Amino acid sequence: MKGSSEHGETSKQAPLGSRGVSKGVSVLDLILRFIAIIGTLASAIAMGTTNETLPFFTQFIRFKAQYSDLPTLTFFVVANSIVCAYLTLSLPLSIVHIIRSRAKYSRLLLVVLDAAMLALVTAGASAAAAIVYLAHKGNVRANWLAICQQFDSFCERISGSLVGSFGAMVMLVLLLLLSAIALARR
Amino acid sequence: MKGSSEHGETSKQAPLGSRGVSKGVSVLDLILRFIAIIGTLASAIAMGTTNETLPFFTQFIRFKAQYSDLPTLTFFVVANSIVCAYLTLSLPLSIVHIIRSRAKYSRLLLVVLDAAMLALVTAGASAAAAIVYLAHKGNVRANWLAICQQFDSFCERISGSLVGSFGAMVMLVLLLLLSAIALARR
Repeated sequence: MKGSSEHGETSKQAPLGSRGVSKGVSVLDLILRFIAIIGTLASAIAMGTTNETLPFFTQFIRFKAQYSDLPTLTFFVVANSIVCAYLTLSLPLSIVHIIRSRAKYSRLLLVVLDAAMLALVTAGASAAAAIVYLAHKGNVRANWLAICQQFDSFCERISGSLVGSFGAMVMLVLLLLLSAIALARR
Repeated sequence: MKGSSEHGETSKQAPLGSRGVSKGVSVLDLILRFIAIIGTLASAIAMGTTNETLPFFTQFIRFKAQYSDLPTLTFFVVANSIVCAYLTLSLPLSIVHIIRSRAKYSRLLLVVLDAAMLALVTAGASAAAAIVYLAHKGNVRANWLAICQQFDSFCERISGSLVGSFGAMVMLVLLLLLSAIALARR
């Protein structure tokens, strides 16, 4: 029997059908991680390469907008890069879970790290969303003017780059649920 | 034996020491929920009652700052209120888990809702933090001026109200870990 060769863990209590479901959960975990990696990577790259130079300029000032002008957008790129790196590093562990579906401590480790990464990617995405909203609408009371009239392609790009990050957020919530299901099925 | 009276769930596999630990995890879950409730409630109230009227005014304009001038701060109040309400509603379930430490589906429900609420409170806190940062520092490139020179008590208040929210974030990450531990110990 295959189960008995897995580092002395017995799988005699779990019937074969139940093991199939556990394996399915682990495979789904791996797929969701891939989607989240693509989402955060796309967000980081889309934001990181944003750059617009306006076609007109005065003698002294060249009108140019890039993500690093706004510290919040820099944080967005950093947060997405960190989450993307973490998710890539977590792939081997996710593959181990497909083979050893009864693993416990490694799953617990993933739960707490996934939750921390969920907080990080959400922080980056929503802070950037707050700034993007301000860039679009401005704020009359604080006398902050909307900058999207001038930098419309810049604004479109930074708005679009939020999508991947919010997608990764949803994936991480689902990953937490899957880890909980896997732990409950052990 | 107490375990056998609990709706037909058998607890014969789990030794008494293990049951004590499970109960401890459930009690800690309840305590962390209380702390998170206090944090989100304090944040929502502190932000929601922020109001500063400057002592000088012109004939037409009275300089007044309140949280609803900035939509992001309104979102912060709403997000904290929702999370606070959810945590309060989750208390009975948390108490049930102290008594029935082998509950499975209700814990899974809490994991996915806790993860969603973690995302919500993080979104509110970090979006507000982005705006508070802007209010303090302004942004030269976007020509957004810092408003904290004029409204310093307003700025202090909105900065302070972030603390409770970030505390609740940490509590929710720990709650997810506790739920995972409880599910793994079943």
